[in-house]
Amino acid sequence: MAPVHDGDGPHSEVEVLLRSARRACGPLARSSAEQRDAALRAVAEALRGPARDAVLEANALDVADARRAGASAALLDRLRLDGVRLDALAEAVETVAGLPDPVGRLHDRRTLPNGLEVARMNVPLGLVALVYESRPNVTVDAAALCLKSGNAVVLRGGREAARSNAVLASLFGGPLRQAGLPESAVCHLPPGDRSEIVALCRAVGLVDLLVPRGGPELVERVVAEARVPVLQHARGVCHVYVDGDADLAMAERIALNAKVQRPGVCNAMETLLVDRACAPAFVPRIIRAMRAAGVEVRGDASVQALVPDVVPATEADFDTEHLALVLSMAVVEGLEGALAHIARHGTRHTEAIVTSDPEKGRRFVREVDASLVLVNASTRFNDGGQLGLGAELGISTTKLHAYGPMGLEELCARKWVAFGSGQVRA
Amino acid sequence: MAPVHDGDGPHSEVEVLLRSARRACGPLARSSAEQRDAALRAVAEALRGPARDAVLEANALDVADARRAGASAALLDRLRLDGVRLDALAEAVETVAGLPDPVGRLHDRRTLPNGLEVARMNVPLGLVALVYESRPNVTVDAAALCLKSGNAVVLRGGREAARSNAVLASLFGGPLRQAGLPESAVCHLPPGDRSEIVALCRAVGLVDLLVPRGGPELVERVVAEARVPVLQHARGVCHVYVDGDADLAMAERIALNAKVQRPGVCNAMETLLVDRACAPAFVPRIIRAMRAAGVEVRGDASVQALVPDVVPATEADFDTEHLALVLSMAVVEGLEGALAHIARHGTRHTEAIVTSDPEKGRRFVREVDASLVLVNASTRFNDGGQLGLGAELGISTTKLHAYGPMGLEELCARKWVAFGSGQVRA
Repeated sequence: MAPVHDGDGPHSEVEVLLRSARRACGPLARSSAEQRDAALRAVAEALRGPARDAVLEANALDVADARRAGASAALLDRLRLDGVRLDALAEAVETVAGLPDPVGRLHDRRTLPNGLEVARMNVPLGLVALVYESRPNVTVDAAALCLKSGNAVVLRGGREAARSNAVLASLFGGPLRQAGLPESAVCHLPPGDRSEIVALCRAVGLVDLLVPRGGPELVERVVAEARVPVLQHARGVCHVYVDGDADLAMAERIALNAKVQRPGVCNAMETLLVDRACAPAFVPRIIRAMRAAGVEVRGDASVQALVPDVVPATEADFDTEHLALVLSMAVVEGLEGALAHIARHGTRHTEAIVTSDPEKGRRFVREVDASLVLVNASTRFNDGGQLGLGAELGISTTKLHAYGPMGLEELCARKWVAFGSGQVRA
Repeated sequence: MAPVHDGDGPHSEVEVLLRSARRACGPLARSSAEQRDAALRAVAEALRGPARDAVLEANALDVADARRAGASAALLDRLRLDGVRLDALAEAVETVAGLPDPVGRLHDRRTLPNGLEVARMNVPLGLVALVYESRPNVTVDAAALCLKSGNAVVLRGGREAARSNAVLASLFGGPLRQAGLPESAVCHLPPGDRSEIVALCRAVGLVDLLVPRGGPELVERVVAEARVPVLQHARGVCHVYVDGDADLAMAERIALNAKVQRPGVCNAMETLLVDRACAPAFVPRIIRAMRAAGVEVRGDASVQALVPDVVPATEADFDTEHLALVLSMAVVEGLEGALAHIARHGTRHTEAIVTSDPEKGRRFVREVDASLVLVNASTRFNDGGQLGLGAELGISTTKLHAYGPMGLEELCARKWVAFGSGQVRA
């Protein structure tokens, strides 16, 4: 028996939900790819037609409540669903349905000297719990990835999207049933007073993986409370370092893309580091380009010396995930200076160097501790879709199991399997 | 700053040790395989000659104390070191030194349509902490594996082996220094009142991986306390299921090997399940063979009906890791019955089927949730050396990151690396 809650059981309801989801694990693990894909395609169908009104209605109520509560325009935008977004969501689900089945895939096959054939076989993790905020499309994306990989999932979204999430999660019930799969494979846990998050954190033996996805406060709270395995999707204070050897036109293109193409996401650049060797040539130029793109640049003393009207950067700026058109900028003493700055301020998310010296690139790749380290490319590539994983549940900055995007492979465990003909150990 | 301890700092000493070990991580991650292997070979050399007397002297004191405290013969045997065991230990260290360097190894290389070359690169996890019991050779084995894989390690062994472990851990200092590596790469944490274990469990941001290795009480305590990532090496209630289709001579050979070849280890069989279809033919025969090998057989009602003088098995027997020449035995209703029994009593460690029907074998492999599932082979193969990993730190029954033996690959994280020529995201 798993102790789901420390105190007297206000969380019998969470335990009941988890046990119900857990009962789906066996049938899911034994299900065929055809069953799981059929369920996913039916969900996409529902998003395109029959369920659309119910989703939009629930969402309109969530948006209205959030507006009354004084939510920011950015939050309202993340919360809002419309026909175009539901079409995109349906397409995303169909993309997941079309990916190769990860379950049962064999890795590292070999025959041992004694004739034993061994391999590692992908199996579902079991029950995945996701605690997330704001964007209701995460409900569908996450449920689709978990179902595709044969995992049951419990979804605990934010209070602001409670109605939208409940309706979106409910869309899986009919398709699961029709595919001969248990409806409790996708469970929605209504947001309450947050004690239900603690109950998820403590559900040893019931939850195989807990993924917090949201602001630093949520992620840090879950990591502190968790007794079950956690992969955290933490904040990204991502750097681009422009080496003295860099092609400055390429450096400008990469830095602009990393900062401006979608500033509100975790793999956007927050800090630009410039080698002192090219600072006089590059700093004024990139500040002009950034400003033209609407970016506020905050520079250290060396940047200020080159562009006197720049906003002075505080030490705190270099530890801040701005998630906005704000850029921290510092001049560093070559590669060593960049490595030291990143070791101090980086968050193990995404780091890039621009250089024309392959040896410097290799050294940067070897020495920087981050889930993706790039040479001569934008930080924006740290994404499951971009890296060829098809889709992702989030980007892990935990080094164990998944470091970087969590795709279908990362939603599987790899058990060992061995086929013999009577082998025994001598 | 990482909160190493909840209360007022009795564990400043643990924190100081961890910070010192942590400072070794950077130099270790940047070190060459030649440096690490040279240090390992020098440790092996010391074990063979110069350090031998000091090790044996410290060990003799530990053994004498344990004997005075009334330790069992089994514990005294696990604790005791002698020339032969130190030679074997030296050879094990040399074997690790001779394995290919896992650090920097690339996996899953591919070129994306935009020309970006991506791969996953092995990097050390960082700082590994091991909490273990009894056998002092674990000190050297674990330190060797961590050093080989570029990880710093903090070793907290059992009180009964405190002197032996301190001397064995100290053997790494000189070789590390001579190889140009920080001595704090291998740190011994003297066993105290166990509050130091809690401090390791809470060292978020300092300890990248905590591995408890020992009795169920130790492992469960660490899992309950841990805020840092844990891979648990839990108990193995391992089953062999003999299907009605099995070659009974092969079944007898496998069952005997799984039970008798080394009964005190986690991958030994604890329960034999026999298909009702072959029970009349197999149960009397295997009980005769087991008894001839000195095994006490405890059978359920169906076994008792076939061999009346068998010891009756209690329900508790089927959840017990005997680790001795005791075998629980039950008759089950075919493959379905075996799968149900294993789902109820298994511990995700090692499970085997003996059958001549390949489809039953495949179904058993697919449906049984364990770190190694075998067809027609002994459970004793769940071992890093046997499975071709070279060596192991333990066997993980945690599904994330490593499920099964933890070898050098499992002591690495896989970060993504990308080499581009100016790619930006559209």
